[in-house]
Amino acid sequence: MGSEEVSTVRALVYHGPDQISWDMVPDPVIEEVTDAIVRVDTTTICGSDLHILRGRLPEVKPGTVLGHEAVGEVVEVGPEVNHLRPGDQVIVSSVSACGQCWACRDAMYGQCGGGGGWVLGSLINGTQAELVRVPFADGSTTRCPSDVPLDDAVLLAELLPTAYEVGVRNGQVGPGDIVVVVGAGPVGLATVVVARLYSPSRIIVVDMARARLETAVRLGADAAESPGSLLADLAEGPGADVAIEASGDADGFVLCTRAVRAGGRIANIGAHGKPATLHLESLWRKNVTISTGQVDTSSTPRLLELLRCGRLPASGLVTHIFGLDRMEDAYEVFADGTRTGALKVVLHHE
Amino acid sequence: MGSEEVSTVRALVYHGPDQISWDMVPDPVIEEVTDAIVRVDTTTICGSDLHILRGRLPEVKPGTVLGHEAVGEVVEVGPEVNHLRPGDQVIVSSVSACGQCWACRDAMYGQCGGGGGWVLGSLINGTQAELVRVPFADGSTTRCPSDVPLDDAVLLAELLPTAYEVGVRNGQVGPGDIVVVVGAGPVGLATVVVARLYSPSRIIVVDMARARLETAVRLGADAAESPGSLLADLAEGPGADVAIEASGDADGFVLCTRAVRAGGRIANIGAHGKPATLHLESLWRKNVTISTGQVDTSSTPRLLELLRCGRLPASGLVTHIFGLDRMEDAYEVFADGTRTGALKVVLHHE
Amino acid sequence: MGSEEVSTVRALVYHGPDQISWDMVPDPVIEEVTDAIVRVDTTTICGSDLHILRGRLPEVKPGTVLGHEAVGEVVEVGPEVNHLRPGDQVIVSSVSACGQCWACRDAMYGQCGGGGGWVLGSLINGTQAELVRVPFADGSTTRCPSDVPLDDAVLLAELLPTAYEVGVRNGQVGPGDIVVVVGAGPVGLATVVVARLYSPSRIIVVDMARARLETAVRLGADAAESPGSLLADLAEGPGADVAIEASGDADGFVLCTRAVRAGGRIANIGAHGKPATLHLESLWRKNVTISTGQVDTSSTPRLLELLRCGRLPASGLVTHIFGLDRMEDAYEVFADGTRTGALKVVLHHE
Amino acid sequence: MGSEEVSTVRALVYHGPDQISWDMVPDPVIEEVTDAIVRVDTTTICGSDLHILRGRLPEVKPGTVLGHEAVGEVVEVGPEVNHLRPGDQVIVSSVSACGQCWACRDAMYGQCGGGGGWVLGSLINGTQAELVRVPFADGSTTRCPSDVPLDDAVLLAELLPTAYEVGVRNGQVGPGDIVVVVGAGPVGLATVVVARLYSPSRIIVVDMARARLETAVRLGADAAESPGSLLADLAEGPGADVAIEASGDADGFVLCTRAVRAGGRIANIGAHGKPATLHLESLWRKNVTISTGQVDTSSTPRLLELLRCGRLPASGLVTHIFGLDRMEDAYEVFADGTRTGALKVVLHHE
Repeated sequence: MGSEEVSTVRALVYHGPDQISWDMVPDPVIEEVTDAIVRVDTTTICGSDLHILRGRLPEVKPGTVLGHEAVGEVVEVGPEVNHLRPGDQVIVSSVSACGQCWACRDAMYGQCGGGGGWVLGSLINGTQAELVRVPFADGSTTRCPSDVPLDDAVLLAELLPTAYEVGVRNGQVGPGDIVVVVGAGPVGLATVVVARLYSPSRIIVVDMARARLETAVRLGADAAESPGSLLADLAEGPGADVAIEASGDADGFVLCTRAVRAGGRIANIGAHGKPATLHLESLWRKNVTISTGQVDTSSTPRLLELLRCGRLPASGLVTHIFGLDRMEDAYEVFADGTRTGALKVVLHHE
Repeated sequence: MGSEEVSTVRALVYHGPDQISWDMVPDPVIEEVTDAIVRVDTTTICGSDLHILRGRLPEVKPGTVLGHEAVGEVVEVGPEVNHLRPGDQVIVSSVSACGQCWACRDAMYGQCGGGGGWVLGSLINGTQAELVRVPFADGSTTRCPSDVPLDDAVLLAELLPTAYEVGVRNGQVGPGDIVVVVGAGPVGLATVVVARLYSPSRIIVVDMARARLETAVRLGADAAESPGSLLADLAEGPGADVAIEASGDADGFVLCTRAVRAGGRIANIGAHGKPATLHLESLWRKNVTISTGQVDTSSTPRLLELLRCGRLPASGLVTHIFGLDRMEDAYEVFADGTRTGALKVVLHHE
Repeated sequence: MGSEEVSTVRALVYHGPDQISWDMVPDPVIEEVTDAIVRVDTTTICGSDLHILRGRLPEVKPGTVLGHEAVGEVVEVGPEVNHLRPGDQVIVSSVSACGQCWACRDAMYGQCGGGGGWVLGSLINGTQAELVRVPFADGSTTRCPSDVPLDDAVLLAELLPTAYEVGVRNGQVGPGDIVVVVGAGPVGLATVVVARLYSPSRIIVVDMARARLETAVRLGADAAESPGSLLADLAEGPGADVAIEASGDADGFVLCTRAVRAGGRIANIGAHGKPATLHLESLWRKNVTISTGQVDTSSTPRLLELLRCGRLPASGLVTHIFGLDRMEDAYEVFADGTRTGALKVVLHHE
Repeated sequence: MGSEEVSTVRALVYHGPDQISWDMVPDPVIEEVTDAIVRVDTTTICGSDLHILRGRLPEVKPGTVLGHEAVGEVVEVGPEVNHLRPGDQVIVSSVSACGQCWACRDAMYGQCGGGGGWVLGSLINGTQAELVRVPFADGSTTRCPSDVPLDDAVLLAELLPTAYEVGVRNGQVGPGDIVVVVGAGPVGLATVVVARLYSPSRIIVVDMARARLETAVRLGADAAESPGSLLADLAEGPGADVAIEASGDADGFVLCTRAVRAGGRIANIGAHGKPATLHLESLWRKNVTISTGQVDTSSTPRLLELLRCGRLPASGLVTHIFGLDRMEDAYEVFADGTRTGALKVVLHHE
């Protein structure tokens, strides 16, 4: 029946390990007074979507619409949404914030215990769809002026804030620093781009794949090298001021602890599936600081301002653009990044 | 000959693994213009002296006078010592600071690369002697008023600054915090005492030895328990705000990472001989900060001020007092702390 | 009619400069879905209530119920209040937080631009009443266990958080510091109490009224003196580490800038009605930091925890207790503090 | 006699208010074991030299050689200089650091109480000479590689560290910030250059001289305007995140306090001769932080690294270059900057 057709939208549904498809699903609707419904103009795929696809996040149930990053237009708001109106273009953050729990009161939105945190495309339906319900809409979206290219803006939903908050700011990158970034995937390369905001004197990217190292240099790294040559490179001085782990690999973490100088900082961004060895026998008296973290997306407005004024040259991170209904193809290209050269794969509503 | 007799002093000499003795050694003399010679009135034994004794610090050569903590009277100063005069009573810090290298310019004296750092009783002759040569004397001593008990003052040479700088301040203990201290040896118990300066709401000490737990409560811990019961105790809330590792044991470190809340801090003080497992598979998104460090003794003047005004009740940390020439007995009592109940063992010049 | 009688409550109404009375007013009702109605068990009077009474805050309109501090029981909640239920005992903070505006996202609730900030008893009806409507109830209240005395708990609605956040924390009071507090009224004396949480070595209170200086010593100040003797007292050293202005007087502010050492901090709490002179001709190269601020009440849960465990001895700040219907008498006693010795005047529902 | 001729050098001598001349003076010699003698290759004139010339700094006695900034070659070192050798090219900082007093131990070298601080060309003979004696040479110089242009390097002796430490870092400039700089003289314009290191979104320079505003834009300001138009410009948003006072004028300071947003920072660099009005009646509840300070030059090595790697484009600050023996002409050009357009005037040894 006609009425049924208008009440469905297309969306990328997870059906269990290694099974996704571009399906018709019921329209999302306002469920809570603080919800908004957003029409997705642009979305993207994240490394954690691949983790879900491979069945590594059992909390994600079959039937869930994936995706947690989007730019789109607000089409409906609940009665307690105060800062948005239908027609507003917004960035939908991967992290929702209730604004009232102890973690939110401490500006630690990624740890929200009031029903927010990373729920989109994980515990509730996500953004890889024509429409998405956004919970706690006031605290989970940022208004996006029309002069910002959509392909840049969608990077502010998670990728750039992660690199900035968890990598660069936790690592306290400062002017003149030597910064090592381990792992030249999308988040590692995003880290190179945002680390520049603090004017380090030297950013060294480490990876084992030669092609990725070349990309790193193209995106602004001062040096790109293999793990083996890094320590030799640093040996003439006290070591790196900051080492940022963006590989998700235990050896990458150990490399960070070896590269950093006494008094330096190690910031872990990588999503690790296994423990790493912490060489306390040498580190215990070395005055190092190690941080871990999940993005809060509290920096999205600041980074948006920098995009607008041309001081955050992030475009090079997007390598592929697809129409929204080619979502399945986009997953294939993204998952096979080593061969396709894919970094950030962006999808547009036609 | 008479002249030879006056030119020797008694000192505790390390002769190789498991061999120390109270010997006659030549008088220390001014070697650099920034040296001072101090007559030792009070000294003490540190856990790291036992590490040396067991042969675990190969950089310490046989023939070295041990000890790196003292209170005493300045008897001679080099021509470039500007802040001390013969007759001054001083605390001799375990850490010497050249004041000019990049680490000292960054107030990170424990990492001094200009000939300082921890050298006393390690790379040069130390304080377990009647006289000691103190390098960079202006930057390695603190004048000590006569109204401070010597047995308290000697704790400011290393123990209390370590607990304060590396434990409490790196861990950013604050009013109302829940603080876990793992390890109820001298440095763990000193941490309980100095953590109080920041008014946490609850200090929980963890150890496996029942007698040490009782001592912890006597020294002001709000709770003292086994590792097993700690996590059950914390389970009702988000976890500890700060966990301080003071056991030097890899399992103690892992316990800290389990006890801490999202957004919390782990401060390692323990001298570790082996790596620990860092459970990045659960920690990577938990917003924790882990610090390691060596004491700088930059806090000694502040802590001295607090001792003077009665706000740092540290006396309970001293359990045994000996005459200086009973140094060998003191080592035995200290090394067998489990049986003797020794925490800090202090030696007095008669 | 009977129905009308049950729909009114008694409240302290401001009728214009120098005119207040204990009147019958209509029951407050839920107006927004995030409101709660609280039955006031305990309230108090603040210095800013006197400012209103004297007509100095023209934004407060005649007809307003005054008061912005209370402890009471929740009797009704709007549908979007998630953390409170009827029957909960809560502290009602003077500051309401929408939780979604840029200031709240930055944990700066006192500057809330989303309808919160200090509105209670100022822009909307307040707590000096039998019932009060609390806006943004989740973000404007703290649950209060029954084991905390009401007369202590009500101090957490504004007084102690102000002293702690705006005075002690902005001033970065630390262990061993010399702290000067200028002004020995309720907020200055509250500052003495909360400054102790950070173990300064010396707290010096300055006031011109001898009786208040005596009270300061009774509440824990190490010294209490006139402005004239302060500078002489500090002359032997580099000056105060922290000077806290709590008098609201321009001369008090100047005294702070004279008392502080190079590298020290000046924290202004005082509500000033006039400009002060900033002696930049001597301060410009002195490395001082001056802060101003309005309370956020974000520290209320921490301070509550400290009250509960007996580490925040605040009771001495309450000098007078009245029944709620003696509100007009309480204003007189409070306003005439110099004669009556009133510090904090607390009112109880019978 | 010949021996007398070789023992004199040419130097700019202050003879009392409005009297300077390029004279022959005795060679500086090593006086303390920590001194070095440096042959001046490049020096410059600072605004504070003009203050001296006008008689405003009575502590500077007639007969003093002026100047406190230089790049040159070490020709002789005292026996306790450990980090320099004859032949080294060094930047001579305006601030000398004894490295042992409480201020130096706190890395606050500008406040050194051990004979350092700003003494060169003030309390002792300075750098506007062919040779200069540098006290505490290890802590008062930075080795300068030959690949750094001398005209850039000499800006690291005081100008750029002042703008960076006292302006940008005290003001906590961060990515995306709106930064207002009041005063477009040399230090204000240097602030524009170094503020860029932290990627603010907008730097607005305010001055009353139209020519200086044009220079500001040429050096990278995003906007340059009169005091009157600034507040209108900021009125659409909450205000500036950071306002930096670099005019030395009381009205400039007041403008900063009006421009800054709630929660913002005001960093004073300007050398003020008179008090300013602090409008506490509006600021007391605005959550602002005001800092003052004297440069420590601790940032010189970092800034040098940034110059070397091309990330600190400072050359535009130098407008005039003279031979060393045209020092008197250089003073005239610099003093008459409004007419000559002089910013930084650099002098070279031929």
